[in-house]
Amino acid sequence: MLGSTHGTFTTDPRRAHVVACGELPPSAVHGSALTADDLDVSGRPLHADVPDLDRFFRPESVAVIGASDAEGRPHAGITRQLIAWAERVGARLHPVHPTRHSVFGIPCSPSVADLPEQVDLAVLLVADPLPVIEQLAEAKVRFAVAFASGFAETGAEGAAAQARLAAAVHGSGLRLLGPNTNLNAFEKFRDDLEGPAIALITQSGHQGRPVFTLQELGIRLSHWAPTGNEADLETSDFLSYFAERPEVGAIACYVEGLKDGRAFLLAADRAARQGVPVVAVKVGRTETGARTAASHTGKLTGADAVVDAAMRQFGVIRVDGLDELQDTSALLARARRPSAEGVAVYSISGGTGAHFSDLATEAGLTLPTLSAAKQAELHQWIPEYLNVANPVDNGGHPVGDWRGRRIIDAILDDPQVGVVICPITGPFPPMSDKLAQDLVDAAEETDKLVCVVWGSPVGTEDAYRRTLLGSSRVATFRTFANCITAVRAYLDHHRFTTGYRSPFDEAPRTPSPSFRKAQALMRPGEQLSEHAAKQLLRAYGIRVPREQLVTSAAAAVRAAGLVGYPVVMKASGARIAHKTELGLVKIGLTSASQVRDAYRELTDIARYEDVPLDGVLVCQMVERGVEMVVGVTQDPLFGPTVTVGLGGVLVEVLRDVAVRVPPFGEDQAKAMLHDLRGRALLEGVRGAPPADVDALVEVVLRVERLALELSGSLAELDINPLMVLPRGQGAVALDAFAVCR
Amino acid sequence: MLGSTHGTFTTDPRRAHVVACGELPPSAVHGSALTADDLDVSGRPLHADVPDLDRFFRPESVAVIGASDAEGRPHAGITRQLIAWAERVGARLHPVHPTRHSVFGIPCSPSVADLPEQVDLAVLLVADPLPVIEQLAEAKVRFAVAFASGFAETGAEGAAAQARLAAAVHGSGLRLLGPNTNLNAFEKFRDDLEGPAIALITQSGHQGRPVFTLQELGIRLSHWAPTGNEADLETSDFLSYFAERPEVGAIACYVEGLKDGRAFLLAADRAARQGVPVVAVKVGRTETGARTAASHTGKLTGADAVVDAAMRQFGVIRVDGLDELQDTSALLARARRPSAEGVAVYSISGGTGAHFSDLATEAGLTLPTLSAAKQAELHQWIPEYLNVANPVDNGGHPVGDWRGRRIIDAILDDPQVGVVICPITGPFPPMSDKLAQDLVDAAEETDKLVCVVWGSPVGTEDAYRRTLLGSSRVATFRTFANCITAVRAYLDHHRFTTGYRSPFDEAPRTPSPSFRKAQALMRPGEQLSEHAAKQLLRAYGIRVPREQLVTSAAAAVRAAGLVGYPVVMKASGARIAHKTELGLVKIGLTSASQVRDAYRELTDIARYEDVPLDGVLVCQMVERGVEMVVGVTQDPLFGPTVTVGLGGVLVEVLRDVAVRVPPFGEDQAKAMLHDLRGRALLEGVRGAPPADVDALVEVVLRVERLALELSGSLAELDINPLMVLPRGQGAVALDAFAVCR
Repeated sequence: MLGSTHGTFTTDPRRAHVVACGELPPSAVHGSALTADDLDVSGRPLHADVPDLDRFFRPESVAVIGASDAEGRPHAGITRQLIAWAERVGARLHPVHPTRHSVFGIPCSPSVADLPEQVDLAVLLVADPLPVIEQLAEAKVRFAVAFASGFAETGAEGAAAQARLAAAVHGSGLRLLGPNTNLNAFEKFRDDLEGPAIALITQSGHQGRPVFTLQELGIRLSHWAPTGNEADLETSDFLSYFAERPEVGAIACYVEGLKDGRAFLLAADRAARQGVPVVAVKVGRTETGARTAASHTGKLTGADAVVDAAMRQFGVIRVDGLDELQDTSALLARARRPSAEGVAVYSISGGTGAHFSDLATEAGLTLPTLSAAKQAELHQWIPEYLNVANPVDNGGHPVGDWRGRRIIDAILDDPQVGVVICPITGPFPPMSDKLAQDLVDAAEETDKLVCVVWGSPVGTEDAYRRTLLGSSRVATFRTFANCITAVRAYLDHHRFTTGYRSPFDEAPRTPSPSFRKAQALMRPGEQLSEHAAKQLLRAYGIRVPREQLVTSAAAAVRAAGLVGYPVVMKASGARIAHKTELGLVKIGLTSASQVRDAYRELTDIARYEDVPLDGVLVCQMVERGVEMVVGVTQDPLFGPTVTVGLGGVLVEVLRDVAVRVPPFGEDQAKAMLHDLRGRALLEGVRGAPPADVDALVEVVLRVERLALELSGSLAELDINPLMVLPRGQGAVALDAFAVCR
Repeated sequence: MLGSTHGTFTTDPRRAHVVACGELPPSAVHGSALTADDLDVSGRPLHADVPDLDRFFRPESVAVIGASDAEGRPHAGITRQLIAWAERVGARLHPVHPTRHSVFGIPCSPSVADLPEQVDLAVLLVADPLPVIEQLAEAKVRFAVAFASGFAETGAEGAAAQARLAAAVHGSGLRLLGPNTNLNAFEKFRDDLEGPAIALITQSGHQGRPVFTLQELGIRLSHWAPTGNEADLETSDFLSYFAERPEVGAIACYVEGLKDGRAFLLAADRAARQGVPVVAVKVGRTETGARTAASHTGKLTGADAVVDAAMRQFGVIRVDGLDELQDTSALLARARRPSAEGVAVYSISGGTGAHFSDLATEAGLTLPTLSAAKQAELHQWIPEYLNVANPVDNGGHPVGDWRGRRIIDAILDDPQVGVVICPITGPFPPMSDKLAQDLVDAAEETDKLVCVVWGSPVGTEDAYRRTLLGSSRVATFRTFANCITAVRAYLDHHRFTTGYRSPFDEAPRTPSPSFRKAQALMRPGEQLSEHAAKQLLRAYGIRVPREQLVTSAAAAVRAAGLVGYPVVMKASGARIAHKTELGLVKIGLTSASQVRDAYRELTDIARYEDVPLDGVLVCQMVERGVEMVVGVTQDPLFGPTVTVGLGGVLVEVLRDVAVRVPPFGEDQAKAMLHDLRGRALLEGVRGAPPADVDALVEVVLRVERLALELSGSLAELDINPLMVLPRGQGAVALDAFAVCR
């Protein structure tokens, strides 16, 4: 029940690798067949394949295979819970048992074939679900749940058994939850709570429990999907389904490992289109965490930076703690769209207001200074010497009487203010009880968000338990930090979803003319020479310096004449790395004699270092600009990714890079640059002119296109450096490195 | 009572500025007279002047000036609370009232002069405490508390009144708490709790309440000092006092603004010497926060980066939230010295263990992999397929029986492990109740730290309220994040205090021989020329390039000969900034003719730009190294500060700098370099040789000495760049900029 081994997966790590190698990812071949129209140019699907799970969560009839009423047997307890659940959802329940005539007084069928009717859902309590799968498919059962453990979570042997189970399910028309899942989906949900609900998806029952328990604090929960080993149905399937349920206000996920990156992004995209917030804890911030999660889930945890970027691209709000998951999803499920982004902080203590504002501002929230008129209005009820500019400090006493409510309404009434936050750090019943009630009453009469932080560590006070938690309009927190995190997520979510345009709608479906030229350059399994790699870039319209590949000193001198002095000369070959360190680059050559000497020197070094050359590159020397790096790498989970960084010391020493998962548009390409800590360099520092950012963005987008089109044949690409010239002058790839598959 | 206007101060912002201008800071002239021996070379004190507050917290006799029993009057309520408090601490209480004969049946004295005995403490309920101060001093009263508000917190007029009050107190022999403080010091503390206690210091009653309330969760509190406006007694006084109280295990502070930086550091130093942890929330992370805090406290909030550095220098643990303040001080108050730094994570769910480990590792905690032998031992009770390497995943079921305790003891018994953390995210009574009890029992029998995270958002469960909170040996948290923050603080604190050496013991008391030379160069109120600024550095033994100041082309050529080609030439003058931008620097001059031309060009530009020159510098050209910046600035709160940064783009674009407040030793100078994000540059990147870090550290220490000795006459100093040459070759100040006061 506690799911120490839940959230485990059958997917063989090699499976993910297969995806990375550019064949159709699982989501493409999964469930219903997809036509070329549904795939992007990399062969990855453009639409989530959403199972209709209505009959899973609200079946008309359920079969329990292996039902029992033998006291003491765990199956008896489970059977009893399933009977209670079936009654709650109004489903007819049919026990199946080879020998029993009835279970808990309900007539038993000896086998699936003998079921009195076609059932929507079969719950398998048997140790080995495999043989039952065929019978279920035969009987046109739509969904099955397998509790049995001993699969991928136990190692290679179990993984093999799970693979067989997945194969049996695949194409059977049956959809399977599990194996190694639990009863969480069939728990008793409170039906007396109102308003939009949280839908919960977890890969570990124990980790999902705190969100489920929020119901005891008055937060409505509509579904819980414990995805177990995800042999078939996975997190993304439930995400897509929940995104379109009217009662769902927010989706909370606990994810240890994703089965299929694209499927997850497509699901997140559906939620973004629907404006339904998705809040997720994704384990794997660190090596250790990843290692542990891997050994726990029996499958690869994606490189965290990529997961993080991918989630942000599709508006998934990633949090670290389960407490943040609870507080953020509870707020997002219930709060209405903000009318303004301004946050007003209201408190009975100047210290509290100052402290909260300090942390809120640091976290990026905007606290507008209230207008002189508004301040004058507030000073009708608040002593002159107190600060009411925002934060609003009422000095305490006004909350005790009729003024308290007036002050709250006056702040809520300010057009700059979309959110009012009242931190109450110390309960002082004569004041805090009345304040809490006023806030609850005011919240009932406004569409704006009203938040309270109840700072007492005790949390058994009436004002907290009854008044605040009793309101579905006030968002109540226990810490400043969680309130700030949730409010930021709330404002970010609405900013993101307002006018959201799905990158999948604009993703390329067919190769560009560049593709054929590029293909001709690829050498399976080989590293390309700098010259060939630059040809690849040129094929995609990325500018490279004028250059010629020569094989004699005389030809070098002729080339220099054509390229134009001063020139740079570099040894060129298929397996050259670290040119500079090896002395295989000569810059600033201004005469034929220098070119001749350089040619000799380079070829000598190459011979000495035993580096096979295809020649020497004579290149145009490019005037100074801002050095950037742009690259493509293959992520096992998401396929090709595009990376941008500041060249030179910033990327070497600070790893100051931003990554994105294609497909993405210009907005994300620009956002990547904004993510760079050293972005100011592009605006020009120390009197340097601003760089041609538009040209840089254009290069990123062309590299993205290249990454998608060559997804199957390109392992790695690096442009280092990409010299971004002053505004209006473009960007030039001075060096390039590429490895084919 | 709620202290919306508490924690406010009389200190005129100009006062802090006066400190910055190098006169004796308040702490030097504060209370008892200090001899030169007690001052460092900058004139700042080397010893905290600790008031004996025993009689304040445990007086034998108390007078209540303005006592009342007139029902409904607030003074009656306060008087009643004071009587109850006096009874609790066993003090004789004497009401003072001009007309009443008795108050609550206690005989009343008409005036202070008529008091029946000399009292330790007088509580002033009068609107204007000023006239009473003299009478109290007359009557040899040791401490007074003034509740009256309407002072600095209300603006300039109130600040003036507060200044008069401070002046009256000053030198009267009386020590004053307040004005504008409250009853917090006289609250009812639980006396049934055991173990080391938290002592609390707050500048806002409302902000202190949550820590006080911890008593309801079984955390012992020994004192609460609500420092109000700090006209006399300030945060630092209580910090020093609490640091030496045997019952105090940790000191928790809520600080909006510090009255005197040095006094705070001296107090923190006392705590560090005693090994008593100090945990502090200091408002002012952001401009807004600072502004608000300032307007709230009526006094300057120090630049946050300096406050942050100063706190770290003296081991003060700074946290952001009041929840962190509670959880961290509660843990530090009660936990014993760690026997090892390794953290073991134990959970009933692999998901929970993986998740917690991920966050803990990211936060810098060390999770050692348990030995094969230890893992084998654990596998006696835990199924083979579960991960017990650390985190230890028991799969749930073993906790239900006798195995549960065995597992915990086996982990605690591992010599690598100093801390065991058990996150219980979902309460499942059959398992979690037993687990909680086992952890409590095991904690009783070990000196190692046992932490539990109770993840249920409800928090009314018996296992939490009774079992876990009932134990003074188990540290219980509600979130992963706070547990990790507290455990990190715990390990950091013990690492810091082990073998702590106070920088005040080694601080220079008398000027070095360099001082006289330096003084001769200072020009009050003026900016020094590059040449003069370099002389200043030389006076402190900091290497500068060979250079000569010349006033003719011919002299320039002679100088170049002496300095040695190639040379750099720069225009030199008292008011030159941005030399490079103005074209007033010529580098790489290799011949007499180039030097002659350069001289002409520089003087022409200077004439054209109308920049008065004192000549032209002909300098040795220094081979490449790592460019650093080292500087001195004056902080209004702490006086001179020393800054180190990586030169060039890193400091320009990323503001990658570290700051420290003198006095500090070599350890801190090295720590500064470690703080730099780009520190790898010093180790040598892209084949560059490692830089002479020892020489860099030496320069920082010499600049520190300079900053202390010239504290009164130097406004700013910048060495930019300091060229740090390859290891063994030293560091050279290529350019310097200084402004005198």
